[in-house]
Amino acid sequence: MPRLRLALGQTNPVVGDLAGNSDQIVDAAKRASAQGADLLAVGEMAISGYPIEDLASRPSFLADSHRAVERLAKRLQDEGLGDLPVIVGHPDGPFEPRLLGTSNAPTAIAQNCASVLQHGHVKARYAKHHLPNYAVFDEYRIFIPGDELLVLRIRGVDVALIVCEDLWRDGGPLSRVMDADAGLLVVINASPFERDKDEVRLPLVTRRAVETDTIVAYVNIVGGQDDLVFDGDSVVVDGTGSILARAPQFEEHLLVVDLDVAGATGAELPESVARVTLADSTASADVVRTDIATLPDDREQIWNALVLGTRDYVEKNGFPSVILGLSGGIDSSVCAALAADAIGPDRVYGVSMPSRYSSDHSRSDADDLAENIGLHYSVEAIADLVLPIETQLKLTGTAAENLQARIRGIILMGLSNLDGHLVLTTGNKTELSVGYSTIYGDSAGGFAPIKDVPKMLVWELARWRNELAASRGEVPPIPENSIEKPPSAELRPDQTDQDSLPPYEILDAILDAYITRKLGREDVIALGFDAEIVDFVTKLVDRAEWKRRQGAIGPKISGMAFGRDRRLPITYRPS
Amino acid sequence: MPRLRLALGQTNPVVGDLAGNSDQIVDAAKRASAQGADLLAVGEMAISGYPIEDLASRPSFLADSHRAVERLAKRLQDEGLGDLPVIVGHPDGPFEPRLLGTSNAPTAIAQNCASVLQHGHVKARYAKHHLPNYAVFDEYRIFIPGDELLVLRIRGVDVALIVCEDLWRDGGPLSRVMDADAGLLVVINASPFERDKDEVRLPLVTRRAVETDTIVAYVNIVGGQDDLVFDGDSVVVDGTGSILARAPQFEEHLLVVDLDVAGATGAELPESVARVTLADSTASADVVRTDIATLPDDREQIWNALVLGTRDYVEKNGFPSVILGLSGGIDSSVCAALAADAIGPDRVYGVSMPSRYSSDHSRSDADDLAENIGLHYSVEAIADLVLPIETQLKLTGTAAENLQARIRGIILMGLSNLDGHLVLTTGNKTELSVGYSTIYGDSAGGFAPIKDVPKMLVWELARWRNELAASRGEVPPIPENSIEKPPSAELRPDQTDQDSLPPYEILDAILDAYITRKLGREDVIALGFDAEIVDFVTKLVDRAEWKRRQGAIGPKISGMAFGRDRRLPITYRPS
Repeated sequence: MPRLRLALGQTNPVVGDLAGNSDQIVDAAKRASAQGADLLAVGEMAISGYPIEDLASRPSFLADSHRAVERLAKRLQDEGLGDLPVIVGHPDGPFEPRLLGTSNAPTAIAQNCASVLQHGHVKARYAKHHLPNYAVFDEYRIFIPGDELLVLRIRGVDVALIVCEDLWRDGGPLSRVMDADAGLLVVINASPFERDKDEVRLPLVTRRAVETDTIVAYVNIVGGQDDLVFDGDSVVVDGTGSILARAPQFEEHLLVVDLDVAGATGAELPESVARVTLADSTASADVVRTDIATLPDDREQIWNALVLGTRDYVEKNGFPSVILGLSGGIDSSVCAALAADAIGPDRVYGVSMPSRYSSDHSRSDADDLAENIGLHYSVEAIADLVLPIETQLKLTGTAAENLQARIRGIILMGLSNLDGHLVLTTGNKTELSVGYSTIYGDSAGGFAPIKDVPKMLVWELARWRNELAASRGEVPPIPENSIEKPPSAELRPDQTDQDSLPPYEILDAILDAYITRKLGREDVIALGFDAEIVDFVTKLVDRAEWKRRQGAIGPKISGMAFGRDRRLPITYRPS
Repeated sequence: MPRLRLALGQTNPVVGDLAGNSDQIVDAAKRASAQGADLLAVGEMAISGYPIEDLASRPSFLADSHRAVERLAKRLQDEGLGDLPVIVGHPDGPFEPRLLGTSNAPTAIAQNCASVLQHGHVKARYAKHHLPNYAVFDEYRIFIPGDELLVLRIRGVDVALIVCEDLWRDGGPLSRVMDADAGLLVVINASPFERDKDEVRLPLVTRRAVETDTIVAYVNIVGGQDDLVFDGDSVVVDGTGSILARAPQFEEHLLVVDLDVAGATGAELPESVARVTLADSTASADVVRTDIATLPDDREQIWNALVLGTRDYVEKNGFPSVILGLSGGIDSSVCAALAADAIGPDRVYGVSMPSRYSSDHSRSDADDLAENIGLHYSVEAIADLVLPIETQLKLTGTAAENLQARIRGIILMGLSNLDGHLVLTTGNKTELSVGYSTIYGDSAGGFAPIKDVPKMLVWELARWRNELAASRGEVPPIPENSIEKPPSAELRPDQTDQDSLPPYEILDAILDAYITRKLGREDVIALGFDAEIVDFVTKLVDRAEWKRRQGAIGPKISGMAFGRDRRLPITYRPS
C-alpha cells in the first residue's frame, strides 16, 4: 500500500484580502514541505475568504481571484515549493450566466472552485456541484454549479477532490467520484461553527469513509467573518471509521499525517470524471508528529467561538480597542470577559454610567469586574445629561426610561468617535428576541458578542468561565453578585426584568420552540406552556423584528441565529 | 370565437393577514360577479401577502394558509359567488422536504401555488415551477418547485395558468403549457416596482403573447410590503401585441375585459399537463367598461412608489402618525412632502432642531415648508442639550459633530415614544452609499422614504412635485431655497457637503458604476473619472457597510437597492 504524507492547512482568511490570504497559504506550504508532505490542501475559498456573498457577482473581483490563484502558483514555484501539490479553494469567473433547472440565478457568473497547483501552474480545477441555499447560505444565488469531476493521481494513489456541500448530499458527485475507485477523498470546506454541529459533521465524515471504504480528509478554514465563526476542526478518518488525525478547533493549524492508501486500480473512469496525474513531491522528512485533538466541552466550545468571533471582527476591521458599558449586570460582565479573552484587557475600555435609579451594587459590581479583569475603567454619571432633555421634551414613562439608555449609547459612541474604539453592545439573544432593549440606546454598537446566547446560557457561560479561572488559580473575572442578583435594566426604581417578562427558564424555552423549532402558537401551547404567556411572548417577538433588523451583528453559535438564518418580514399581521 | 369576460383583481394584501386578505378577494369577487365576469384572477400570494420569506418554513403558517384557501372557497359559495371561478395565489404545505438537483433547499416545505376555486371547493391547483433566487428574491430557499401543469376549460376555452417567474424563462412550463393549445394564458404575479421595470415587463408580456399567438392576462398585486412596492399595472395583451386592458399603477383595482378567445381544440394534452373543466359562471351583465390606463412619466411613477411604500408601511404596521426632523434641507423637505402625500399633513409632525451652527435659512426654510404643507410643526433647540454632554465628555471634532445629530435622534425617538409616531429618517441613497450620516443620529428611524433615491434624483423629484402643485393651482410644498441652496449638514460653521464629498453629479455617477453596475475600481476609472476620487468614493462605500446594515428599510425603486438586493460582507479587505 502506498504511503502518502498529507498536510491540511487550517488557515484564517479575510474576505477580499487575496494577497494576505495567499501569504497564509505560502506559509502553510513552507511548513508542509519542511515536514515532507506529498500533498497540501487548504479550505474552501481560502484565497478569497468565505462567504464572499455578492462579491461573486462583481466581474473584477472574480478576475482578481483568478489571477491570485495563478500568482500563488508562480510564487510557490519561486519559493522552491513548486513540487508540492497544493489544493486551494477560490471563486472563479466571470463566466457567462446560465439559467439552471427550475431555480433561477440569472446573475450568477462565478463558480466555487478547488484548484490544484504544482510547478508554477494550475494543473487541475474542480467546481463545487452542490450549492447550499438554506440557513445562512445563498450559494445558488451567486454560483454556477460544476458538472465535471476530478481525480488526482499522486504517488500512485487516486485522490478524489470535492467541496464542502458535495459531501453532505447522497448520490451526485460523491457516488460518481467513488466509482472512480479513489483511495483518498479530500473535501475542502468553509463550515461555520454551530453548537452541537460536531455531532453532525464528524459522524457524516465517518459515515462517508465507511460507506466508501476510503480515507476521507476534511479540511476547514478557521476564524471569524462577520457573524460566522469557522471552527477548523479538520479531520482525517479511515475506512474503518477511525480518526487518524484531527486539528484543534478555533486555531490556525497545519495538520500532517501519514496515510497508507490503497493504490490506484485499473478501474475505468466514470463519465465526466477527469484524471490528472501530478509529479511526485521531492520534499522529505523522517518523522511526522500527528495531532489528534480532542474537543472541549460544550460551554468551552461556545466560549471559544465567541472569543474568536469577537477577536477577528476587531482585528480584521482594524480596531485598536473596544469599549462597552458596564452596568454590573451579567450581560455586560460576560461581554467584558469575552473581550478581554479576545484581545487582552489592555484593549478593553469599560464605562460605568450610573443614573439616579442605579443601585449601589450596579456601581460596585462594575468596579469589581473592572478590577478582576484589569480593563480600562471610567465612570460617567448620566443624571445631569438626562435631565435637560427630559425637562425640555417633558418625557415620562417609557420615553424617559429609553432616554437614559440612549444617553448611555451617546456616551459610548462619543468616546468611540474620539478614540476609535469599537463599541460592543451587550444584549443577549433573549432580549433581542422579545425586543427588551432600547434601540439607539443599549443596542448601539458595531458588534454584539452574545447576541446569539440566550439568557440562561449567559449565566452558564459566566459560571463556567469563573470555574476555569479558579481551576487555573486566577481571579474569576465575573463578580458572583453579577451572577446571583435578579437581572434588572434599572431604568426606574426597584425595576427587575421579571416585572415585565416571564421567568427566564420559561421564556427561553418558549423562544426556543417558537424561533428555533419554528412552532406555531398552538404547537407551543401544546408543549405545556400557558396560552396567555405564549401569546404575549410570540407577539413581542414578531413586533421586535424592526429592531433586530437594525441591530449589530454578532457571532452565530446556534442553528438559528438572528440575521441570515432567519429572514422574516417586519410588516406582518398574524391573523 | 367564444367570448370570455375576464376580471383581474389587483388587491393589496398584508403579509400574514389571511383573513383580511381573503376579505379583499371576496370583495373583488362580488364586484367581478356584478359585472358578469366568467373568471376572476388575483395576484401571486394574494392570500398571504408577498414575500413571506421564512414564514414558508413554519409548518403552522402553511397549514393556516391551506385552510384559508378552503375557507375562502366556502365563503364565496356562502355569499352566492360560488359559480364564479376564482384563481388565487397562496403558499401551500407543509410538504416533505426534497433535495433538488445541484441546489439544496433541504428546509423547503412549501410550494408557491395558484388554486382555482368554484362551488365551495378547490377545483385545481398549480405550483410555480421557476423559483427566482436572485436580486431580492430567495424563493429557492423556501419553495419546492412544481412539476405538473394545468389547463382550465372554461366556457369552451382552454386557459393555461402559470405563476410570475414561469413567464420569464424560455422553455419549461411555458412552452409545455403552450403545446396544450390554450387560448388564454393567465399569469398571477407579485412583481415589485423598479424604475424602468415597465420597459422590461410589458415587452415580455407582449413577446409571450405574440410568440404563442395567445392572449396573455398578467395580474399583479399592489401595495407596499417593507422595502418592496408592488405596482399593480395588471395588463391584458392579445396575440398581435395589442393592449386590451390595463389597470392603473399603485392602486387597488378590478380590471374587467371581454376577450374573444380561440376555442378549445382537440389537441392532445402534453405530458404532465392536467385539464380541469369548470362549470360556466351564471353571472351576467350587459356592458363592461374596460380601462386602458396609461403610465405616467418616470418621476411621477417614482413619487407614487415612494408615497405608496410609505403609506403602507405606516398603515399596515398601525402607526397613528409620522415624525421627522426638518432641517430646511432638500432631503427632509422631500420626505415631509412624501409623508403628507402618503397619509395627509394632519398625521405628519415636523420638528426643527436648530443648533448653534444652524443658519438662519435652515430655520426659515423649515418654517416655510411646514406652512406650505400644513403639517404639525415644533421647534426644539438643541444647544442646551448638547453642551452638558460635550463638556462632560470633552468631545471635539467629528465626535462633537455626531453628538448634535445624535441629540436630534434622541429628540425624535423621545417624541415617538411619547406619542407613537413612526420616525422617518431622511437620508438619501448617496448619503447611505458613502456613509455620510451619523449612525443613531440622523439615521435613527423606522422607515427611510428616500433611501433608494440618489441625491440628484432627490432634486429632480422636488422640482417635479412643485411643478405638479403649480399645475394644480396649489402651493408648491418645497421651498425654492431648499432646492437651490448648497447642501450642508450644518454640524460646524459654514460647512457644505462639498467640503468632504465630490460634486453630486460626479459622486452619483461613480456610485452608479460601482454599486448598480458592479464595476471594479479600474473599470470605473476607465469611464473617465479621476482615480483618486474613485478610490476615495469606493473606500467610503466599502467602509459604510456596517452602517447600512443597521439602517432603516425604505422603498426600493432601483434595480439595485441597499438591502436584500446587494448582500456584501462588512468585514472586507480589498487587496
